[in-house]
Amino acid sequence: MKHAPWKIEASSSILDTPWLKVRADACTTPSGERIDPYYVVESEDWVHTAVFDEQRRILLIRLYRHGNQAVNLEIPGGNMDPGDPNPETAARRELLEETGYTADQFIPLGDLTPNSARNTNSLHGFAVLGPRKVAEPATDAAEEISCEWVELPELMRRIAAGEFRQALHLAVIFLALQKLGWLDLDTAQGRTSTV
Amino acid sequence: MKHAPWKIEASSSILDTPWLKVRADACTTPSGERIDPYYVVESEDWVHTAVFDEQRRILLIRLYRHGNQAVNLEIPGGNMDPGDPNPETAARRELLEETGYTADQFIPLGDLTPNSARNTNSLHGFAVLGPRKVAEPATDAAEEISCEWVELPELMRRIAAGEFRQALHLAVIFLALQKLGWLDLDTAQGRTSTV
Repeated sequence: MKHAPWKIEASSSILDTPWLKVRADACTTPSGERIDPYYVVESEDWVHTAVFDEQRRILLIRLYRHGNQAVNLEIPGGNMDPGDPNPETAARRELLEETGYTADQFIPLGDLTPNSARNTNSLHGFAVLGPRKVAEPATDAAEEISCEWVELPELMRRIAAGEFRQALHLAVIFLALQKLGWLDLDTAQGRTSTV
Repeated sequence: MKHAPWKIEASSSILDTPWLKVRADACTTPSGERIDPYYVVESEDWVHTAVFDEQRRILLIRLYRHGNQAVNLEIPGGNMDPGDPNPETAARRELLEETGYTADQFIPLGDLTPNSARNTNSLHGFAVLGPRKVAEPATDAAEEISCEWVELPELMRRIAAGEFRQALHLAVIFLALQKLGWLDLDTAQGRTSTV
C-alpha cells in the first residue's frame, strides 16, 4: 500500500523548550516495518516576507545567524508567537520589528513545509506591496540588522553568485515573483509564457 | 559592532544520534548580551536534484514523510553519508536509489543553508541533465516512492496551486531554472532579461 501514513505506536518528548522541541516516535510503516526511534523537530510556524517597492526593488536584510555561524543575506520574517491570531499578523509584526516598515498588501503565497522529512511546522510566505517606513527597527539586542533595497536584476545576480543562501527565503522569493507575474518561463521552443 | 559573530562561551550536547544532533550553546553577542541556551540542530549535509529530460520535463517523486505526516510531492535527494567523498557522489547515489536513474551532467547550484538561524548543515542542489534509467529503485522499505515526469508549465501550475510545498526543493528548482536560463525576469517596463 503506497503512500499510506506510518502508524505511531508510541511517542516521547526528548527536548521541550520554548524555542525547540524534539519528539521520538516509534512507528510502523504500511509494509509492517518498525521504525523506532524516528526523531521529529517541532517548532512554531514561521512567516517570511518578500517586500517590493514601486520600483520593484526587494527589501533585504543582513544579519548574523548562530545556526550556520555566519552573516546571512535574508528577507524579513521570523517565528509566529502564540499570541498571533494568524500568519499575516505575525508577518506584519516581524516586518515592523525587523525593519520599521509596514505595508498595504500582504498577499499570501501558501503554506510550505521547511523540511517534510523532519519538521512538523509550516512556513507562510507573503508577497508584500506598498511598503512605508513608519518606525525605527525594534529588534532585540541579539539582532543587529541592516536593511537594503535591491533591484531585481541585482537580486538575481546575487542568487546566481551564491550570495543569497537561505533556501527557505529563496523559495518564498520564487513564489512571490511567480505570484506577481514577474517571471516568465522559456519554453523549449524559445517562446515565453507567464508562470 | 554590527554583524560580528556571537562568542560561544560553553557548549553541551543535548541529543546525539546518527540522524539528529542538538547542541546547546551559551553565547555572548557583540553588544555583550548573554544568550544561554541557544539550541542548534546538527545533521549531515543534504543533496537535492532537479532532473530534466530532453523535453524539459522534471522528475518528481511522491512519498510519505513523517515530519509533516503527509504525502509530499518532492524532487529526489537525501542525506550525505559519511562515506560520500563529495556532494555530487551523494546526489548520484540518492538519485539512483530513489528513482533508478543516472545522468550525464550534475551541474552544481551552490551550497545553501536550510535554516541559518537553527541548522548547522548545508544543502547542495544540482541541475541534472541527460537522465537514463539503469535500474529499479532500491529504496529501503520505509520509502515507498512514485516517480513522474512533469512538463515545466504543469510544474509551475502545481507550485502556484500549493501542490508542491517542500520549500528547500522549491529553492533548488528555482536555482536550476535560473542556471539553465529557462526563466526570464520581466522588468517593470515589460521587457524581459535572462536571470
